[in-house]
Amino acid sequence: MRPDGREPDRLRPVTIERGFIRSSTGSALIRMGETRVICTASVEEGVPGWLRGRGQGWVTAEYGMLPGSSAQRIPREAARGKIGGRTHEIQRLIGRSLRSVTNLGRLGERTIWIDCDVIEADGGTRTAAITGACVALVDALDAMVATHALERSPMEDLVAAVSVGIVDGEPRLDLSYEEDSKAEVDMNVVMTGGGRYVEIQGTAESGTFSREDLDRLTALGAAGVASLVTIQREVLGRRA
Amino acid sequence: MRPDGREPDRLRPVTIERGFIRSSTGSALIRMGETRVICTASVEEGVPGWLRGRGQGWVTAEYGMLPGSSAQRIPREAARGKIGGRTHEIQRLIGRSLRSVTNLGRLGERTIWIDCDVIEADGGTRTAAITGACVALVDALDAMVATHALERSPMEDLVAAVSVGIVDGEPRLDLSYEEDSKAEVDMNVVMTGGGRYVEIQGTAESGTFSREDLDRLTALGAAGVASLVTIQREVLGRRA
Amino acid sequence: MRPDGREPDRLRPVTIERGFIRSSTGSALIRMGETRVICTASVEEGVPGWLRGRGQGWVTAEYGMLPGSSAQRIPREAARGKIGGRTHEIQRLIGRSLRSVTNLGRLGERTIWIDCDVIEADGGTRTAAITGACVALVDALDAMVATHALERSPMEDLVAAVSVGIVDGEPRLDLSYEEDSKAEVDMNVVMTGGGRYVEIQGTAESGTFSREDLDRLTALGAAGVASLVTIQREVLGRRA
Amino acid sequence: MRPDGREPDRLRPVTIERGFIRSSTGSALIRMGETRVICTASVEEGVPGWLRGRGQGWVTAEYGMLPGSSAQRIPREAARGKIGGRTHEIQRLIGRSLRSVTNLGRLGERTIWIDCDVIEADGGTRTAAITGACVALVDALDAMVATHALERSPMEDLVAAVSVGIVDGEPRLDLSYEEDSKAEVDMNVVMTGGGRYVEIQGTAESGTFSREDLDRLTALGAAGVASLVTIQREVLGRRA
Amino acid sequence: MRPDGREPDRLRPVTIERGFIRSSTGSALIRMGETRVICTASVEEGVPGWLRGRGQGWVTAEYGMLPGSSAQRIPREAARGKIGGRTHEIQRLIGRSLRSVTNLGRLGERTIWIDCDVIEADGGTRTAAITGACVALVDALDAMVATHALERSPMEDLVAAVSVGIVDGEPRLDLSYEEDSKAEVDMNVVMTGGGRYVEIQGTAESGTFSREDLDRLTALGAAGVASLVTIQREVLGRRA
Amino acid sequence: MRPDGREPDRLRPVTIERGFIRSSTGSALIRMGETRVICTASVEEGVPGWLRGRGQGWVTAEYGMLPGSSAQRIPREAARGKIGGRTHEIQRLIGRSLRSVTNLGRLGERTIWIDCDVIEADGGTRTAAITGACVALVDALDAMVATHALERSPMEDLVAAVSVGIVDGEPRLDLSYEEDSKAEVDMNVVMTGGGRYVEIQGTAESGTFSREDLDRLTALGAAGVASLVTIQREVLGRRA
Repeated sequence: MRPDGREPDRLRPVTIERGFIRSSTGSALIRMGETRVICTASVEEGVPGWLRGRGQGWVTAEYGMLPGSSAQRIPREAARGKIGGRTHEIQRLIGRSLRSVTNLGRLGERTIWIDCDVIEADGGTRTAAITGACVALVDALDAMVATHALERSPMEDLVAAVSVGIVDGEPRLDLSYEEDSKAEVDMNVVMTGGGRYVEIQGTAESGTFSREDLDRLTALGAAGVASLVTIQREVLGRRA
Repeated sequence: MRPDGREPDRLRPVTIERGFIRSSTGSALIRMGETRVICTASVEEGVPGWLRGRGQGWVTAEYGMLPGSSAQRIPREAARGKIGGRTHEIQRLIGRSLRSVTNLGRLGERTIWIDCDVIEADGGTRTAAITGACVALVDALDAMVATHALERSPMEDLVAAVSVGIVDGEPRLDLSYEEDSKAEVDMNVVMTGGGRYVEIQGTAESGTFSREDLDRLTALGAAGVASLVTIQREVLGRRA
Repeated sequence: MRPDGREPDRLRPVTIERGFIRSSTGSALIRMGETRVICTASVEEGVPGWLRGRGQGWVTAEYGMLPGSSAQRIPREAARGKIGGRTHEIQRLIGRSLRSVTNLGRLGERTIWIDCDVIEADGGTRTAAITGACVALVDALDAMVATHALERSPMEDLVAAVSVGIVDGEPRLDLSYEEDSKAEVDMNVVMTGGGRYVEIQGTAESGTFSREDLDRLTALGAAGVASLVTIQREVLGRRA
Repeated sequence: MRPDGREPDRLRPVTIERGFIRSSTGSALIRMGETRVICTASVEEGVPGWLRGRGQGWVTAEYGMLPGSSAQRIPREAARGKIGGRTHEIQRLIGRSLRSVTNLGRLGERTIWIDCDVIEADGGTRTAAITGACVALVDALDAMVATHALERSPMEDLVAAVSVGIVDGEPRLDLSYEEDSKAEVDMNVVMTGGGRYVEIQGTAESGTFSREDLDRLTALGAAGVASLVTIQREVLGRRA
Repeated sequence: MRPDGREPDRLRPVTIERGFIRSSTGSALIRMGETRVICTASVEEGVPGWLRGRGQGWVTAEYGMLPGSSAQRIPREAARGKIGGRTHEIQRLIGRSLRSVTNLGRLGERTIWIDCDVIEADGGTRTAAITGACVALVDALDAMVATHALERSPMEDLVAAVSVGIVDGEPRLDLSYEEDSKAEVDMNVVMTGGGRYVEIQGTAESGTFSREDLDRLTALGAAGVASLVTIQREVLGRRA
Repeated sequence: MRPDGREPDRLRPVTIERGFIRSSTGSALIRMGETRVICTASVEEGVPGWLRGRGQGWVTAEYGMLPGSSAQRIPREAARGKIGGRTHEIQRLIGRSLRSVTNLGRLGERTIWIDCDVIEADGGTRTAAITGACVALVDALDAMVATHALERSPMEDLVAAVSVGIVDGEPRLDLSYEEDSKAEVDMNVVMTGGGRYVEIQGTAESGTFSREDLDRLTALGAAGVASLVTIQREVLGRRA
């Protein structure tokens, strides 16, 4: 039995609020259970030095947690003067995930900054960030099409992500913090609207997992991502 | 005429949402016009080294702006590896303001961390942070009384703050970003529920101001703070 | 009775030694009682990036305390690898104060670096820094006129500053460290030679202050600044 | 056809030199093709603060690349003053991988520092680091058994890792730098001597991958890891 | 002919002003020509961690240059967030030099912080710092004897330093900045009052030097240090 | 009697392996007893800003120790976020030493990065680094001649270095770590193939040394360097 009574293959309640930050051309507040993340997409002319002159764009992501987002206060990384290993890893994952569905050539020499800030944390913040940021990115790119900065959107598909894991020997979808902290195996699955994999990261901190476990977890993740993409489409007013 | 048609002595629409972060014992989302700030108060046992052994507590504040909180993206201080001068100044101001109404002796050897994170910025973020943080602090301390960690709350009064300024020669209350960026004089006024000053900071970056200007601005600020304290009392369900 | 027997409305003995650093085109050693600050003004061609191309200059300030400037050694900020909040606040105050009397357009695309280094600290270091730095700045700009780098000096007035405060219930001018550390209210007043306000910062760390206190302190500060401007004029060999 | 003529399912030539650093109780130089990594394991009494008092130990890893390890010099992270995101990610991966086969309770309140320093880089440095570090860790723990610091070794299995990827549409084992830089999909597989998964990280930076791709890559990786474990056993003089 | 007309074996005019910082128990302002350095010695109970429990003390030094100390402004190391290589080297040299004449056992578990801050720089700042700091240290330790914190001073001798160099093929004593910047060989000689070497650092940045050059420079340095020690003794009111 | 039974004037066994890093155009692994250092020389077009436009090149050095290079693990400077004083000092020494034998004008506007990374440390790492780096530099510059990037090599001589010291009152050549840690005087001598001094650094951390000691140590060092240059010549296949 899960702490909130959910079936093993069920997501927590999900809502995505488009345009949560009015001054931003692309933003969303995603909520998955008690986890809430503000996602924004900001466009900047130009690209990082190593990419200059190749006629293509870049999508990069930054991630943070508000100190008060968790019952136990999280020290501010700005105050510590450096970004921790976990944050780096998450930032890189979000960036890669969004680039996988963006045609960087069509974007032109521009950088999209994706910012994902967790305002309340109850597990699955990095996967919620990817799912919410995808909506913000769609809107920011559509706004560029609307102002004729781009001829058509460089987004080639949607992308969403979910966590799965093995808790008390049972494969489960969309772990809460309580479940995550005692999971034997933890896996993040990032997939496109078209059902192809972008990233899969499975980790057994305590113990190990078998080939069969891997198969069950990836199947569970694929189903979860499919549900999230359906929600993204509804929110964006798109057909499948 | 002000950009949003307000009278010179009127606040923008103000709302304070208590308990915005569920996992926090004291939190508030304050909105003043388009400016929105999440404020949380977290209790930690113990005090900074220089205060140890004196039987009194400490209230300290941190402040941040989400990168996407403004139309022009704000680089993340954690990524730059250091906190800028403006942030330091604001953090110190918020901390002093809240300590002025807290009986640190009655708090005992505990530290209250106040976190103010701007999710959308349209001027007056530091004063909104003080006003919102006061509500979060009241709730966090009341929760300690409810669990008998404290016998009675160390809060001795409420505290609120507002910006005033001279724009196009006219003294105005509660400047928006557009007004603030062209103000001749900018002043922040922090006062208690009892109508006494806690802090007053008036600055003329371009030009200077007279004794009469000073008097007019402090009067305008006092009236604005009085209105904010009334709102705090309503939100907290308190009588004057 | 004050620790050094002064009347409440008296400054400590003040001296300003022009040209204290021979290799500098503008420098001063200001002494207010036991407080001593070396102030220099260095001219650099060009302006910060955000100001480029607008045909105007910039005045910026840095402030430091020698570790041995106080009986209790002050750790070196360079060794700690970052500048503290108090230093940031002071640097910004000094910069704003000097810019308020400088015609930045007439300066052209140049940056003036003001450095204020406290060699002995006994209260009022930031206000002494402003008063001393003003003399250094006058000399640096006059030297540019002398070498025909500028047609006439961009200085439009003098600027000076003083601290005032309430100690043992009594408003006092120019607090020493001993008085400052037990003051109920502490205020810094920055004014021009013409008697207009540039900045006013009043803080009640313990307790609060009334409208009447504010009036008394600003009056005391205005008189103190007027005396300092007279000394600046004498040192610079100028008529009122 | 691969650049070095290998079959798609073949490892590069692998050697592991035990005891490469004489002053270290556990060290190894691993070579996979032109990639060479020095791995050491150092024992320190005590554990990080958050683990204190629980009677268990910790295994943590650090990773670096010598600036001259690649034809294009790699700037030194110590000189830049911070560790990059890629390094953080690798360090965390190595640490998790080794902890998965170490009985931390049996280790007692000690920390094992694993250091992996790449002296020549030609792809697959992080997986080589894991495979080499496992040998260094076995030796460091066996040395503690030999000196009676431990009754028996906390190592419960061996662990090894390899990269696999899809290059020109073909799944391949153990990519060189040249292959890695043009791979469509890149995956790292970490497994135990017993053939169970510890970590699997598959990434499609350009494009995406299907369920079938995932299956082919994990099979290829499992075979590669099995060969590496055989080499580890030979080097360590152990039977299967 | 030297720029200031001195003979090759002559020091610049030297003065040492004891007690330059009134609040400090040991301080000196040393002037060698236009070079001026403020030196202070501050006593702190306790020693660095690695020395704890051995019953002996420590003498450590920090060095800085005021930004305005040179005609070309020197960026503040605190603002850059790190201490440069040259500063590190100088700090270590000053610390070693003073430790060489201090009986650390007799000092007990205390740390003496030596701070040397250059207020005007015209060559030879590190050697002037050593010579001036020695006087500050004598006074700080004598003050401890006076207050019975120590039975007798741990200073076992005086120490002084001077620069020598080869300029235009000629060995010269006590180089000014102008000479130093074109010297073929530059050497710093640190010696005790008793005429023994503490440190000798000779460097040929452009070109090299012979055994004969080395002999001539060390002789010149020894004579210079002897003169400086005579001045130290006069200032301190000591007999040879 | 020395710990390893050597005569006071004997070097430890020395080997220099050219081309240790295959991907590097100039590299060497130097071994002196148990001390091993990997040295590489990397060429970069362009020079630091302060040297631009003068038509000459630059040689700069970085130095590091692998954490596992010593029995007691050395914390990684990249993890601490800053480079320590000792490292800075060594880097500057290596850079100066190699520049002394390089004709920077003939190099043209290029920077040579010398990296010296200690993989095992048993005393004398900085002097071994200089001796090994010289070989790497010769090879990197010869490779540029071979590809016609340079007409002829800018190397004008060889350079090598050795440590000498007084241990138990006896002057000794090439100290091991055990000897170094109890030496009364420690000196590093850097000389050219032609027998001229480049740098001499003698330090007495405990105690002092006489003129006679200085003479004996420099003679011992000169003989040691001469032997090392002979080895460099053999390795490089050059005649004296």
